[in-house]
Amino acid sequence: MAGDTTNRQLYLQQRPEGIPTTEDIRLREVPLKDPGEGEVQLRNLYLSLDPAQRDWMSDNLSYMPPIAIGECIRSTSLGRVVASRHPDFEEGDYAVGLACNGWEEYSTAPGEMLAKVEKDGRHPLRYHLSIFSGAMGMTPYFGMLELGQPKPGETVLMSAAAGAVGSVAGQIAKIKGCRVVGLTGSDEKCQWLINELGFDDAINYKRCDNLADAIAEACPERVDIYFDNVGGKMLDAALLNLNDFARVVFCGAISTYNETGPKPGPYNYWQILARSAKVLGLLTTNYVDRFPEALRDLSQWVDDGKLKFAEDIVDGLGNTVEAYSRLFTGGNKGKLLVRLSDEAD
Amino acid sequence: MAGDTTNRQLYLQQRPEGIPTTEDIRLREVPLKDPGEGEVQLRNLYLSLDPAQRDWMSDNLSYMPPIAIGECIRSTSLGRVVASRHPDFEEGDYAVGLACNGWEEYSTAPGEMLAKVEKDGRHPLRYHLSIFSGAMGMTPYFGMLELGQPKPGETVLMSAAAGAVGSVAGQIAKIKGCRVVGLTGSDEKCQWLINELGFDDAINYKRCDNLADAIAEACPERVDIYFDNVGGKMLDAALLNLNDFARVVFCGAISTYNETGPKPGPYNYWQILARSAKVLGLLTTNYVDRFPEALRDLSQWVDDGKLKFAEDIVDGLGNTVEAYSRLFTGGNKGKLLVRLSDEAD
Repeated sequence: MAGDTTNRQLYLQQRPEGIPTTEDIRLREVPLKDPGEGEVQLRNLYLSLDPAQRDWMSDNLSYMPPIAIGECIRSTSLGRVVASRHPDFEEGDYAVGLACNGWEEYSTAPGEMLAKVEKDGRHPLRYHLSIFSGAMGMTPYFGMLELGQPKPGETVLMSAAAGAVGSVAGQIAKIKGCRVVGLTGSDEKCQWLINELGFDDAINYKRCDNLADAIAEACPERVDIYFDNVGGKMLDAALLNLNDFARVVFCGAISTYNETGPKPGPYNYWQILARSAKVLGLLTTNYVDRFPEALRDLSQWVDDGKLKFAEDIVDGLGNTVEAYSRLFTGGNKGKLLVRLSDEAD
Repeated sequence: MAGDTTNRQLYLQQRPEGIPTTEDIRLREVPLKDPGEGEVQLRNLYLSLDPAQRDWMSDNLSYMPPIAIGECIRSTSLGRVVASRHPDFEEGDYAVGLACNGWEEYSTAPGEMLAKVEKDGRHPLRYHLSIFSGAMGMTPYFGMLELGQPKPGETVLMSAAAGAVGSVAGQIAKIKGCRVVGLTGSDEKCQWLINELGFDDAINYKRCDNLADAIAEACPERVDIYFDNVGGKMLDAALLNLNDFARVVFCGAISTYNETGPKPGPYNYWQILARSAKVLGLLTTNYVDRFPEALRDLSQWVDDGKLKFAEDIVDGLGNTVEAYSRLFTGGNKGKLLVRLSDEAD
């Protein structure tokens, strides 16, 4: 692709109602511009598909401005530097941009917003977009350890437990000596959580008549940490099972992202008071300065076989939107990535 | 009343729908029983009227079991010991029972649940049911200091700011060097907050077209601590104005206590994540062991004129239910008490 003069990218044609479709997000070719002063241009090798992006596609008050109509879909990506006007980067370097790149072949960003990554001979480079990434590694690391503050013997209830964040957060709680119960959407995923990842128990929420009762049965000593990726009814069921002084790590609310109109908070909000509990909002970007320490731990745990994970890899920019929809239907397991080149494998 | 053989008490005839009436809560005479082993009998001098009691009157899952139909209304009260079968109490002592007594002339409780209080020659004894009490003193003390963690220069937004808890919590934040803005329901109370209690600003929410905008105007540096006594729409307006790393002290939700049916949590719940904020459930009973240190501080602040407060005193057990309703209509200012005897003034 050296010498490309055009960039293919996915842009927001209209704000989605419900799960985004190829009507909402369309492919186009645009001229490839040279990087400006201080900027770095990446040839993207892998794109990250994260639930948070659905929030950015809506016109909501959030921690980032919404993606504008006509703008490329904002994304984290891993790429190879093809042009640099920043002193810290040169051609051939690899770099990750946390939520500053896009679903496109080439991304251009200020050097300050990119982190250089290097082949270490042990792990595929793409791990920097999965287990060592902000979304899959850092989010559960800081969410569980800093906000959850797990203590040995405590009970942790994990929502979206077979997802990128949930699967890692649950294993980190296991490493810290907790009893961990996962919520997920199929019997196959339940078995994976228990047999492969070492969860103590797992609940297939799609087969529960009463989720709160099922949680109560699986968590007889109640729930000390609820790691919330989902919101909605699952959060309400969890709130009914909190232990005194419980922590609710508020990492996401994927069940609500495709709703339009006012979204009520949890109906059992009162339980936060009744149980002297805490709800703790998690933004991984608060911990960027501490990513190196997290990377050391995550890397060690992976090498020691204590931390396992799944990647769900889809090939080709043109398949991105269809793949993205699976995040919301329970159709994926582990970290969802789009591969544009096998150079990072 | 020495030698009384009957006890007059207010009991729950039926669960209220909306604000409790004299149909829901009725007066009766019951035989006065002698205290059992380990119990202490008090002649109540003052009864405490607190929003929390409305929660206990409903059949909700909460931090205490609901008051049973036919049971006396559970309350904090101040009384004189008239009979004791507990070694720590003797006749003539004064004692307060935190949520273990009732709206009645005589209460009998295990000695372990009562705290002895003494006349100190400086403050009326009834202060132990107002400014030195669990509800009016300890709740804002520990809620603001332990959960709110106020830092000099931060902005504190106080709900129900002219109420017992809000008026004290706001002044404690002022003592800690914060800028404090109160939300209350009349211009007269706004003036009281600013001119008498030293609040920096106050908003009459009944005269706001858009409460979120009014808060934004009064809190140009956004809100670092929202002290929530109210829930509902006021909470939603506050959430839109949180600063990064804000703390929401969840002390109560008086706007919802009279609703029946499912109660949605805040519609702007997402802002907790978007602002890396925390919601912190407050139960004052967690801090009982530390009440003495709080009492020292509160007493000193009162003596130094740094902490002012209002008491709203109603005479006679028969007027309790009508007085109680004023808690929910914005009709009271400061701590609402029913006086059964002037012996504690």
